[in-house]
Amino acid sequence: MGLQRGVAIIGAGMTRFHHKIHADKTGRDLFVEAALEAMASVDNGIELRDIEALFIGNFSSDSFEHQGHVAALMADWLGLTPRAATRIEAACGSSGAALNIGVMAIASGLYDVVMVGGVEKMRTLTTEEVTDVLAMASDEVYEAAVGFTFPGLYAAMATAHFHRYGSTWEQLCAVSIKNHHNGSLNPKAQFQEEVIDIARRLGERRGMTFKDEMEFLRSPLNPVVAYPLRLFDCCPISDGAAAVIMASEEVARRFTDTPIYVRGIGQASDTMALHDREDLTSIRATRLAAQQAYRMAGLGPEDIDVADVHDCFTIAEVVATEDLGFFPKGEGGKAAEEGRTSLEGDKPINPDGGLKAKGHPVGATGAAMAYEMFKQLRGEADKRQVRDAEVGLIHNVGASGATVVVQIYGR
Amino acid sequence: MGLQRGVAIIGAGMTRFHHKIHADKTGRDLFVEAALEAMASVDNGIELRDIEALFIGNFSSDSFEHQGHVAALMADWLGLTPRAATRIEAACGSSGAALNIGVMAIASGLYDVVMVGGVEKMRTLTTEEVTDVLAMASDEVYEAAVGFTFPGLYAAMATAHFHRYGSTWEQLCAVSIKNHHNGSLNPKAQFQEEVIDIARRLGERRGMTFKDEMEFLRSPLNPVVAYPLRLFDCCPISDGAAAVIMASEEVARRFTDTPIYVRGIGQASDTMALHDREDLTSIRATRLAAQQAYRMAGLGPEDIDVADVHDCFTIAEVVATEDLGFFPKGEGGKAAEEGRTSLEGDKPINPDGGLKAKGHPVGATGAAMAYEMFKQLRGEADKRQVRDAEVGLIHNVGASGATVVVQIYGR
Repeated sequence: MGLQRGVAIIGAGMTRFHHKIHADKTGRDLFVEAALEAMASVDNGIELRDIEALFIGNFSSDSFEHQGHVAALMADWLGLTPRAATRIEAACGSSGAALNIGVMAIASGLYDVVMVGGVEKMRTLTTEEVTDVLAMASDEVYEAAVGFTFPGLYAAMATAHFHRYGSTWEQLCAVSIKNHHNGSLNPKAQFQEEVIDIARRLGERRGMTFKDEMEFLRSPLNPVVAYPLRLFDCCPISDGAAAVIMASEEVARRFTDTPIYVRGIGQASDTMALHDREDLTSIRATRLAAQQAYRMAGLGPEDIDVADVHDCFTIAEVVATEDLGFFPKGEGGKAAEEGRTSLEGDKPINPDGGLKAKGHPVGATGAAMAYEMFKQLRGEADKRQVRDAEVGLIHNVGASGATVVVQIYGR
Repeated sequence: MGLQRGVAIIGAGMTRFHHKIHADKTGRDLFVEAALEAMASVDNGIELRDIEALFIGNFSSDSFEHQGHVAALMADWLGLTPRAATRIEAACGSSGAALNIGVMAIASGLYDVVMVGGVEKMRTLTTEEVTDVLAMASDEVYEAAVGFTFPGLYAAMATAHFHRYGSTWEQLCAVSIKNHHNGSLNPKAQFQEEVIDIARRLGERRGMTFKDEMEFLRSPLNPVVAYPLRLFDCCPISDGAAAVIMASEEVARRFTDTPIYVRGIGQASDTMALHDREDLTSIRATRLAAQQAYRMAGLGPEDIDVADVHDCFTIAEVVATEDLGFFPKGEGGKAAEEGRTSLEGDKPINPDGGLKAKGHPVGATGAAMAYEMFKQLRGEADKRQVRDAEVGLIHNVGASGATVVVQIYGR
């Protein structure tokens, strides 16, 4: 059975994602900033009293801010009290899962207008501590406790992919260079520099010159984190928040003439531990969640004009573009290298810079993907606008693929 | 607009709640035990493949078990992978909020059968550490950081209630004595002893004899935790899990001839910090959530035959029975003292022993309340059965009332 009622996004906002500039803010400050921007973006205006419920994606404010129960807190600080407020957690897929629940909440008939947000304030801790907190998204007993952290898990996927398909680290670099380019066009991105500009800047300090990005990426300034992944294959640690406002199809046009409709949603899980999977070169939950979303939308991968996929590591973007059906299995790296996923390519991926350059405040990432599609499909993405974008897809992953959410949007 | 489709509970299970016996189990072990019991309770049988999605209430496995992303983990260990699995967090109201999302998920048309569970494994930490983790459910900046913990917050409500309404600590003792009595009839309860039996047992060790419960409760063996609340006014720290299986009205009777229908649901929030409230003697979110649930059910407080309310402290039960409309404001304590909330009273409250005696593994509590109503309304509650129970209510609170969920069930 399909959804009982249609759902659309009528507004979206986000803070800049960053590792430094939010140092004096708490998670609640970040969320309120994103939420107010989302409200201000509603064409015909919206009042707090119009918003009937709040769903907040957040991974672990417990660990980052010694603060649980964050949805009620966010409602309080936004002034939304006494509306129902609920936190959703699915690791780095937290606000993606919250988006699906927002859709269900409206489709159920209970609410007409809800806000779905995501927030994570991570830079309260050291890098080592953050890595430890993130490792809680893997299996504590069989992975984290024996020393696995996420760079290692994705590195295993990368080597498996290299082995089976002959894909290369240079192809991964193409993902990184492309996403940094897109980030340089996005005022909300954490990193707004081309890789070549970073190379020049960092090189200058060390008295080194680089003739191109690849020379820099092969240098000690791009150290190995977990072979074959180097620093520029990994997304950064970020603070940030994002929020979208969803409405039932019946009321959406009261708020805007250009709602962005949710055409399809999907969600699937996989084994928590990577070693329990049959195949390390593909994320089964991505394939299944995409299948559900495509079926509901009556669309296929060929219909997607623009997509935000979960590139927590460069290899993750390559695997995602294959599992979502954009490219045949094993050819995602080649497609990136050929420029097919660039803003001007035939399948633009992560026009906002992706997790790699835009940043990855984990609980905020899914909502920030929905923000980007809202902008892209309304033609409001400025310098990073994908031409003629009418159908967009987001792909938000928890951990090494134990949770995957896919949503498809259309004008 | 009301729910687009009706929803019923078709099965329920729970572990015993306890502070010691689960020492060698992890949260995942506890959840699987509860989930398998829920599946076994489905009259006509159910297979894993029938369950289309999982929603898990959990407060902070992050802190208790260094394990985030628990919904995917629980799906994995139950064998439910690749079904969608999502964790819901709303402090001690986590699985209550998950129950509401389970209802929305089915009413939306997306799923016909879902499992809603709750789990918390708390006794991995010392009592002091648990108290600190629980304090994260309050406002870290304005409450926890300045030393407030939950006994203190509820103690403030108690003194305010005493002051305004002349209610007494002896009335709170009536709640504790009644809930321990009910717990003594419940094989799943953490404490299965009458208070008088505990008095005799503890007295014997110290060479003390007590002529009745009150003498014991006034003794140093029941020390003040936060005035006026003493040890027997506080629920314990517990490990445990609970799970219910929900189905759309259309398919429920395929699984059982006696589904328990969800007649109404409600959820509201309040300010995170207690000091921001206008009134400490009432929880506004309880009144609003109850109003929503009563309206949806077309019922009033007078129609409720049995209720599980959130008695994290004895004063919380008194306030809840007033805010839910069972007794006039200020008369909840008197009603308890007069025996009106006992199993044989006109408004039986917490027949399972409540959080006080049954235990309170925080994330599991809402689901365990739904379990109790499933048993009560099907006439399967054995020694603690409330006679002729046809309509039941659950009331699950996060923190000091910043989240409240109410559900009403009927045969």
